Amino acid sequence: MFNISASYTDLYQLTMAQVYFKTKPNSTAVFDYYFRNNPFKGGYTIFAGLENILNIIESLRFTDADVEYLKTHDFEPEFLEYLRDFRFNGSIFSTFEGDIVFPNRPILQVEGSIMEVQIVETVLLNMLNFQTLIATKANRIRHSAGDKVLLDMGLRRAHATGGYYASRAAAIGGFDSTSNVKSAEDFNIPSSGTMAHSFIQSYVDELEAFRDFAKIRSKNCVLLVDTYNTLKSGMPNAIKVAKEMEDRGARLFGVRLDSGDLAYLAKRTRKMLDDNGLHYVKIVASNQLDEYVIKSLNEQNAPIDVFGVGTNLVTGKPDAALDGVYKLSEYNGEPRIKLSENIIKISLPSKKQVYRMIDQNGMFYGADVIGLASEEKIAQMFHPFDANKSLDLQPFKHEPLLNEVMASGKRTIQKRTVAEIAEYAKNRLALLPDEYKRFQNPHIYKISLSAALKSKRDELIKEHKF
Amino acid sequence: MFNISASYTDLYQLTMAQVYFKTKPNSTAVFDYYFRNNPFKGGYTIFAGLENILNIIESLRFTDADVEYLKTHDFEPEFLEYLRDFRFNGSIFSTFEGDIVFPNRPILQVEGSIMEVQIVETVLLNMLNFQTLIATKANRIRHSAGDKVLLDMGLRRAHATGGYYASRAAAIGGFDSTSNVKSAEDFNIPSSGTMAHSFIQSYVDELEAFRDFAKIRSKNCVLLVDTYNTLKSGMPNAIKVAKEMEDRGARLFGVRLDSGDLAYLAKRTRKMLDDNGLHYVKIVASNQLDEYVIKSLNEQNAPIDVFGVGTNLVTGKPDAALDGVYKLSEYNGEPRIKLSENIIKISLPSKKQVYRMIDQNGMFYGADVIGLASEEKIAQMFHPFDANKSLDLQPFKHEPLLNEVMASGKRTIQKRTVAEIAEYAKNRLALLPDEYKRFQNPHIYKISLSAALKSKRDELIKEHKF
Repeated sequence: MFNISASYTDLYQLTMAQVYFKTKPNSTAVFDYYFRNNPFKGGYTIFAGLENILNIIESLRFTDADVEYLKTHDFEPEFLEYLRDFRFNGSIFSTFEGDIVFPNRPILQVEGSIMEVQIVETVLLNMLNFQTLIATKANRIRHSAGDKVLLDMGLRRAHATGGYYASRAAAIGGFDSTSNVKSAEDFNIPSSGTMAHSFIQSYVDELEAFRDFAKIRSKNCVLLVDTYNTLKSGMPNAIKVAKEMEDRGARLFGVRLDSGDLAYLAKRTRKMLDDNGLHYVKIVASNQLDEYVIKSLNEQNAPIDVFGVGTNLVTGKPDAALDGVYKLSEYNGEPRIKLSENIIKISLPSKKQVYRMIDQNGMFYGADVIGLASEEKIAQMFHPFDANKSLDLQPFKHEPLLNEVMASGKRTIQKRTVAEIAEYAKNRLALLPDEYKRFQNPHIYKISLSAALKSKRDELIKEHKF
Repeated sequence: MFNISASYTDLYQLTMAQVYFKTKPNSTAVFDYYFRNNPFKGGYTIFAGLENILNIIESLRFTDADVEYLKTHDFEPEFLEYLRDFRFNGSIFSTFEGDIVFPNRPILQVEGSIMEVQIVETVLLNMLNFQTLIATKANRIRHSAGDKVLLDMGLRRAHATGGYYASRAAAIGGFDSTSNVKSAEDFNIPSSGTMAHSFIQSYVDELEAFRDFAKIRSKNCVLLVDTYNTLKSGMPNAIKVAKEMEDRGARLFGVRLDSGDLAYLAKRTRKMLDDNGLHYVKIVASNQLDEYVIKSLNEQNAPIDVFGVGTNLVTGKPDAALDGVYKLSEYNGEPRIKLSENIIKISLPSKKQVYRMIDQNGMFYGADVIGLASEEKIAQMFHPFDANKSLDLQPFKHEPLLNEVMASGKRTIQKRTVAEIAEYAKNRLALLPDEYKRFQNPHIYKISLSAALKSKRDELIKEHKF
């Protein structure tokens, strides 16, 4: 739906690009995209947003209006001409969208002229950070919900048009459907919806409201039962209408609880339905749900069939952002490093490959090793900072995680639908042992370095030492 | 930049609209937009997003693709024809964008056919909730920063394209400029930017990097000094380059600190600059800033001239969302109410007007009264739920806050620029006593009801009592 032009960027990308353009226009660079912490204090992260980024970067242009605007900002005419003709002609090596990823390893590498790789930084971080956050949140909720149905209904509280991408990421993380029509339409996600309190209020009588709704919407009819009083008014009226639907050969799909103690109300509601032979009518629950509330409801055996999740899903609460960064690792073929007083913030030099260790049962062993892209089989991996910790990698199958997805500005992998990406995420998650998935003190997935990468990094640290 | 079609909505708006279309197409309704809590545990909120909403609603259409998509969702042909021809023909009464607003009073009222007012709900909540949240966050940061310069640089961590609107709202809340080129271009916000670590890293030598940058960007040149070591490398090199610029008749605008202890480093940096006669060079600081960190830095007399704020601003951390709702208050001229076990969640019936009490000095007295739209001068106001609390309103000037901004689907107020709205917000804030602005236990602004509205609400509560 959204047409993103190349001026959807930070001004400093352009001021830096102009300096490169004037002083070293033929230089090349490699940048790594990675993040530093799993969101939500969790043990894993689901990578999302790649398809959007490939589409956006493949067709990224500065519009005439963009160039006119930039004329007012001290840019020189030749550089503005460069921007007018700007095409991204670089390459991207990436983890597949939907894969399970971990902190401090490259998720994606961008290579090209230093101007072009700098100009795409902002939109790349903007899309990948957010969708990865939301796909991960969605998957935590899926983890709690088990095989119950999950409905995204967060658009009204989402961060403006960010909600469009939130619904996409939620589907990748394991949500079954969305209330967001535009996202459903564009990304081919199942859509669903019930009714709002205003519908009931527009009638003098709740029963009359239910009747009209059920008549017009005989399929997938869900009645919202808490406008006046769930057990004394909403449920008796819903049961009457369900029986009337039966007389017409139709079936009420469900009732929705949107306030009060959901565990208590769901049990009472289930009993009222069952006592009236309405075993097939489902219970939909909503109201400030998240992975913890849903876990608690399931532990209380609340007979809820569908969870509707809004604000906490689409805003990625409480984290609000993934701390993804984009760091220069190679310039004109030479390794580059960013130092920091905080050792964990030191970047990794050179073009790299990441391998996932697969054990004899085909499961993730719990370790990714980062090596130089030029390395052959890596025999041993080393803790990034603790010289005493290493692991023999001989027993494992090594799965390379960074694959070419764009070359010379054109995508080199087939488009994947959201459904395909969601299925891939599900299959990958099935290979991750449960200890990494729990909410409390999850097991820490190891990210380590090959001997060659480690020594190259340590050399560069020494060179820059003060 | 973004073309928002009418399918940017929740599916249930359309399923409800179809029922209305089939059963009572000529009915009218009034909806109130309001929120329940000031965000960030603060004492006030800045209303933002109205201009966008007026633009969006005035031109809201279902595209052919939208209608084709909806054909697959059990909608009837006549209703799809209605959607194909959909235009919003209703009216909107609203608080002016940039005004200071408080919980549980209508900020905006939408009137029209019940179908059209239902269909616009989602996009209205989506835009107003988010921008109001961010404008308020921005203003809290402005409150801490005093008259220092504030730069929004959050786009890389924003919620995808929500970042476009975040930068707009930040300007309304009091930010001076944004790094977000697209928002700067479209909303005429000053834009600014410095340089990233990658720029320095692309050179073997930091000094060489600074020199090239300063040569090409002689105006507004800001050098990032923490890539290797702020005090031992970055600052000595920046000072050398500043002196070289002086020799060319230019001036270094500033240096930027992006890590470490900002208070300590700013003091040392200031001293190094001053010792070299570079009193005019400004210090820019960034790195996870928010209103509390900036308050602390100012209390420590950190000599910082410009604060760059990113993630915490554009994601509205820690709140993530404003809890704005859209509730039916009148249907075919009859009052309507939504009950709740939680007394504060009971909605207010009928079409209303809100008056702000202005004291003899022209300052906000600290009370808004909500009355029926049909009421003349309101003599007394009553606490919504505590029968013992009331206030005589005779001494005050009554300023009506809900003004017609759209009639028959066309805007009736002139377009306002972001700069005008920011100026309005600043002027309105100057009328709000300081006690409402402090972060700890702010004074509570009173929102009360007229006698007529209170008795109408209480009647309706009784009618629906179980």
